[in-house]
Amino acid sequence: MTSVSGKGVQVVGTRPIRHDGMDKVTGRALYGADIQLPGLLYGKVLRSPHAHARIKSIDTSRAEALPGVRAIITAQDMPDITERIGELGETMYNLSYLKENVLASRKVLYKGHAVAAVAATSPHIAEEALALIRVEYEPLPPVMNVKEAMTKGAPLLHEDLVTDELGKNGTQPSNVAKHFRFQKGDVEKGFQQADVIVERELQTATVHQGYLEPQNATALWGADGNVTVWCSTQGAFMTREQVYQLLDLSEAKVKVVPMEIGGGFGGKISAYLEPVAALLSRKTGRPVKVVMSRSEVFEGTGPTPAAHIKVKMGANRAGRITGAEISLYYEAGAFPGSAVQAGAMCAFACYNLENAQVDGYDVVVNKPKSAAYRAPGATQAALAVETVIDELCERIGMDPLEFRLVNGVKEGDRRVDGPAYRRIGYLEVVKATREHPHYSAPLGGPNRGRGVATGFWFNAGGPSSCYLSVNADGTVGMVEGSTDIGGSRVAVAMQAAEVLGIPAEAVKPVVADTDSVGYTSVTGGSSVAFKTGLAAYEAAQDVKRQMVERAARIWEKPVEEVESANGVFHLKSDPELKMTFKDLAARLLTTGGPITGRASVNARGAGPGFAAHIVDVEVDPETGKTQVLRYTTVQDVGRAIHPSYVEGQMQGGAAQGVGWALNEEYVYNKQGDMTNSTFLDYRMPTSLDLPMIDTVIVEVPNPTHPYGVRGVGEVPIVPPPAAIANAIYGAIGIRMTTLPMSPGKVLEALQAKGKRQR
Amino acid sequence: MTSVSGKGVQVVGTRPIRHDGMDKVTGRALYGADIQLPGLLYGKVLRSPHAHARIKSIDTSRAEALPGVRAIITAQDMPDITERIGELGETMYNLSYLKENVLASRKVLYKGHAVAAVAATSPHIAEEALALIRVEYEPLPPVMNVKEAMTKGAPLLHEDLVTDELGKNGTQPSNVAKHFRFQKGDVEKGFQQADVIVERELQTATVHQGYLEPQNATALWGADGNVTVWCSTQGAFMTREQVYQLLDLSEAKVKVVPMEIGGGFGGKISAYLEPVAALLSRKTGRPVKVVMSRSEVFEGTGPTPAAHIKVKMGANRAGRITGAEISLYYEAGAFPGSAVQAGAMCAFACYNLENAQVDGYDVVVNKPKSAAYRAPGATQAALAVETVIDELCERIGMDPLEFRLVNGVKEGDRRVDGPAYRRIGYLEVVKATREHPHYSAPLGGPNRGRGVATGFWFNAGGPSSCYLSVNADGTVGMVEGSTDIGGSRVAVAMQAAEVLGIPAEAVKPVVADTDSVGYTSVTGGSSVAFKTGLAAYEAAQDVKRQMVERAARIWEKPVEEVESANGVFHLKSDPELKMTFKDLAARLLTTGGPITGRASVNARGAGPGFAAHIVDVEVDPETGKTQVLRYTTVQDVGRAIHPSYVEGQMQGGAAQGVGWALNEEYVYNKQGDMTNSTFLDYRMPTSLDLPMIDTVIVEVPNPTHPYGVRGVGEVPIVPPPAAIANAIYGAIGIRMTTLPMSPGKVLEALQAKGKRQR
Repeated sequence: MTSVSGKGVQVVGTRPIRHDGMDKVTGRALYGADIQLPGLLYGKVLRSPHAHARIKSIDTSRAEALPGVRAIITAQDMPDITERIGELGETMYNLSYLKENVLASRKVLYKGHAVAAVAATSPHIAEEALALIRVEYEPLPPVMNVKEAMTKGAPLLHEDLVTDELGKNGTQPSNVAKHFRFQKGDVEKGFQQADVIVERELQTATVHQGYLEPQNATALWGADGNVTVWCSTQGAFMTREQVYQLLDLSEAKVKVVPMEIGGGFGGKISAYLEPVAALLSRKTGRPVKVVMSRSEVFEGTGPTPAAHIKVKMGANRAGRITGAEISLYYEAGAFPGSAVQAGAMCAFACYNLENAQVDGYDVVVNKPKSAAYRAPGATQAALAVETVIDELCERIGMDPLEFRLVNGVKEGDRRVDGPAYRRIGYLEVVKATREHPHYSAPLGGPNRGRGVATGFWFNAGGPSSCYLSVNADGTVGMVEGSTDIGGSRVAVAMQAAEVLGIPAEAVKPVVADTDSVGYTSVTGGSSVAFKTGLAAYEAAQDVKRQMVERAARIWEKPVEEVESANGVFHLKSDPELKMTFKDLAARLLTTGGPITGRASVNARGAGPGFAAHIVDVEVDPETGKTQVLRYTTVQDVGRAIHPSYVEGQMQGGAAQGVGWALNEEYVYNKQGDMTNSTFLDYRMPTSLDLPMIDTVIVEVPNPTHPYGVRGVGEVPIVPPPAAIANAIYGAIGIRMTTLPMSPGKVLEALQAKGKRQR
Repeated sequence: MTSVSGKGVQVVGTRPIRHDGMDKVTGRALYGADIQLPGLLYGKVLRSPHAHARIKSIDTSRAEALPGVRAIITAQDMPDITERIGELGETMYNLSYLKENVLASRKVLYKGHAVAAVAATSPHIAEEALALIRVEYEPLPPVMNVKEAMTKGAPLLHEDLVTDELGKNGTQPSNVAKHFRFQKGDVEKGFQQADVIVERELQTATVHQGYLEPQNATALWGADGNVTVWCSTQGAFMTREQVYQLLDLSEAKVKVVPMEIGGGFGGKISAYLEPVAALLSRKTGRPVKVVMSRSEVFEGTGPTPAAHIKVKMGANRAGRITGAEISLYYEAGAFPGSAVQAGAMCAFACYNLENAQVDGYDVVVNKPKSAAYRAPGATQAALAVETVIDELCERIGMDPLEFRLVNGVKEGDRRVDGPAYRRIGYLEVVKATREHPHYSAPLGGPNRGRGVATGFWFNAGGPSSCYLSVNADGTVGMVEGSTDIGGSRVAVAMQAAEVLGIPAEAVKPVVADTDSVGYTSVTGGSSVAFKTGLAAYEAAQDVKRQMVERAARIWEKPVEEVESANGVFHLKSDPELKMTFKDLAARLLTTGGPITGRASVNARGAGPGFAAHIVDVEVDPETGKTQVLRYTTVQDVGRAIHPSYVEGQMQGGAAQGVGWALNEEYVYNKQGDMTNSTFLDYRMPTSLDLPMIDTVIVEVPNPTHPYGVRGVGEVPIVPPPAAIANAIYGAIGIRMTTLPMSPGKVLEALQAKGKRQR
């Protein structure tokens, strides 16, 4: 770890223990599954055994007759909301698809698709009841990838889905929900100017976020029609929105209580169980808890889209990219809406291109509806672009980081899709990477290779809120609405502490329910330290202003006479007359009452994040197994509020990227059944698979945040698969183009190469 | 019900359904006993079987050996805090006494005094373990009332307690903790000017608040030393204060979560179980829940002090009180600190006296430490003063309400203890009472009598806080810190709604924990609608200001151009251009972000409350049973925010007063054992004992509150015993001087009178 600066701040940049740390490591933190309520019932969801089938009938009568069963719901129990879809243009999801995903009404579109749900007095009875529900299906042939889905005459998932083709609706139904294009300059002219052109076709797998805590929801539908939902969510307000819209209620009728969250990575934004638990509670008049098993998480929630990518890039001998085009075909899963648009914006975002074209295709297939997963869509695109650049560099004989310094983006450059950059740190990151000892260290053995790759993520802002209240002991209660997935509580608290001149530990953060804090957008887009940090900063300013007024009142001086610095209030005219924040806090109740602060912001300009990764691997020629030997991540974080958690994000993103690169995938049989829906069979990296991941923090302050914060959580997952593919090429001279680059595939490639060479 | 005015307001004075109503009547509201946590242990408290004894030893070894027992604590487990007592001058309780009351170390001072506590895996095991704890006691003779306690040579509860005698410490230990005096004019001269003097000695009983929900506390002591306590409390911040001081922690280490509360009436301010549950949790590392039984509530919590009172008042023929003196001897219970000081201030507070003297004695006896109970201390004193005034009126032949119009207090008059009144409504209340049809209605039968009495209560203010957040559907989330005992949520919400011009139902109130809202003083002193209402009013002004700014931004006009009235924002220059609060709320997220508001106040000048009650009774000469036939309460409430809940308070106070008057008392045997510690044997009034209690709301606005609110909850318990005593006198010609005026006592009095007349 290298931190660049810490000037003028006392708290920002330090590493206090996070407020929720002890509770979490000692098992005392309360998660959704810990909820117990008087009269609680247990819900279970019946899921489709078919990847594609028409539902002909559902008979719940035998299940209803089972003693202990209190209610059964199907899609028929959900309100008819089709008329309201038009109103929902501003939201990020299509309500009718969401509804169908929560409980299927006409067709099941993937194995694991929810069909019905039971509430019973015990989880065992609920499970038993599931087996008694008779669903008559008419099985249909499944389409399991974009190639199959786009084949002429392919089975259609949605008979009424017509392609949105370059902004115009088609007439014939198809499995392609959307085809869009970004263009800049003249890509054909660009290729004509190239000395070298590389063209590749790549494939990534369906990969799950693999959060530790399965989805869960507990709901209590009050007799007055108010619904309370406790759940594991990345955004209580977003869950509230989905629940009240799906259940056709007014916003204020729904209260969502975010419990502690055991990981999310984008996968806990969409609603799955919340509306189900709520409907079961309405029907029974009792609280109902539903918790997914791991298999349900794999099969019933949203993984990242698998992608098929065609990429072509040309460069001249000077190392300048002259033309670049990419076509991204992303599997949306059962319903339209993959991350292909984000992927398309990210694909060339590291490079200042004159001639480029990006095509995106959103394709439905008989897999779970894809969801956000850490820098959604970017990793897939980066695999293609960053490996092709590696090949270009090899062909023109240029150092790949040098190449990126030639082509990399800086302030004022524009992405292919339009927007110009403010102050960014891509070049700083590449330089720091080039200078890192890892980049020039000897590899130290045979079958070893080194790869580099870079990545971009937008980072988001959005609305957020914060309340602060000063306690008599000089501590400050902080209420925020951002679910804390990766240490954001402490990062937000530190920004309030910095303003107030008190230790981070003196701020006591609370993540509140939707009735108890102002609107706060979802914990996603790497936004929290930026947007909720800003809200905390502003709320602290509100507190500080009042503290200054109070000091002035106590000293019987005009407010203008009082100054505040580093948590000490003093009189300009008499610097000896001073009070610490703590001194003053102790006097509030007797000098006019308590002091509280508030702020709500709509934070804009989160500031893009760029990362470069260096990785060394060794490939076992006998087994095809790739071992990661050394890993270094370099990232512009704007300003690391709490460097440890920034480093944790960098390391975590890299670790997940290693999983994508080497092992993780949904394995399907021909019927469209996932055959590895457990953590035993779905191979995520363990600590034994990873070296210590070294981190280099680069700080190019974001000009739109008082402390220069940029988002940090997502971009570290973007470079790893490409960097590892490049490293494998270095080790064995083979350009792998299909994820995961698992031992079997590598061995196969080695054998094919061997045959070619014989 | 008669309401005086409702000018210029839309929400204030209306009767919306309370927000917590449905949940409470359908059993879905969550109380402390509903808490379930993973790994929860159950605690039970071992209590003294003796009213007075020295603890010689405690042997917990056999209990500890019982399978399922996880921890046992005694007073030895509490930190030594004696050195900190001096710092606690500003708080309302003596920490060392509180500590001894929570767990006795050297002596037990009443039957039911806590001695040890067990945490076990089930409540049954915990109870079994209690029986295995061996406590060796040296029994001591108990003192059970002030007469015994003040007898020379009486057994001493606290060997080191010396009387604070008129502000000077004595030298000899005694059971009198304090004797103080208020004086005005020359009372002897006053008596000399009197034409009639009445002198009486009266006795009131030990009476419990009788809240429906027993005390409970659940605590989780985190590995990082942070303690969370869920409990039934009238003030989460006050509970936090007691817990962190008793456990010698810093304030911020303790978080108190106030659950719904099933009644308090003053009895849920002092800590009993909270420190016990916390210590058991620390020792076990697991959450521990402790819930009292009804007998524990009677024997182990704080009832109102029984009082012995000597009163002497003189008046001239014109009906002017010339002199008045009263001596109040209140039973503090096991530790000093009865409500005698408040009683002394209230005793003559309805009358403008030239010559008066009040003596107060705080006397310890071997009963549970007395606690606050609705207008603490005032009812006892009012019994004495208001019955003696009745007798004076009889002697001089003057109507008792006329008499009160001659002597009653008005703006500028001073209480005996000093303070002068602001605008008050005593005379308005007396006039409204005199004009009420009840006062002149025929009694309609033999053995019937009508009594009137009046009463005073200070009403309190204090620090309080409120947060507001605007939802997109035009509703507003409201966070407050005031436990809602009697409908205060809605009364507070209505004040915010009034400012914002939205319906009361559009405000969603949340009573938050101590980390999630600004400091808020206890729900007591009839303060909430006043102080937290004021905080909500100010927070709503904060929201409104920002909404006006937002409207101006949307219309691209200066802020000064925008006006707001009744929830509609419009342009001064173009009244056609307008938006409702709801319209604007829907646009916030896209026009600059959410809007939240906050306020913290230290509300002063709560404004005294005065009440007058008329009661008709019929006494059965065969059984001595008194039946209340008709009851009318008249009260100055300042301004009734929600008249239904104001009326509910007036009715509830009267009902409890009827209990004091006619039936309720702790019955003790000679050993000092309470012999009626169940609701079967402790006779509280039921609906069959009460007529419909009619209410007359008088509104003399309190000048220190924007809507004129005064406290309303306490003063209605002050007049009933006196009014009923006066009515019984009207029915049977006997001045009852001992509470309760139960059938047995009345029959005895009737028989004695019969003997005298024979």
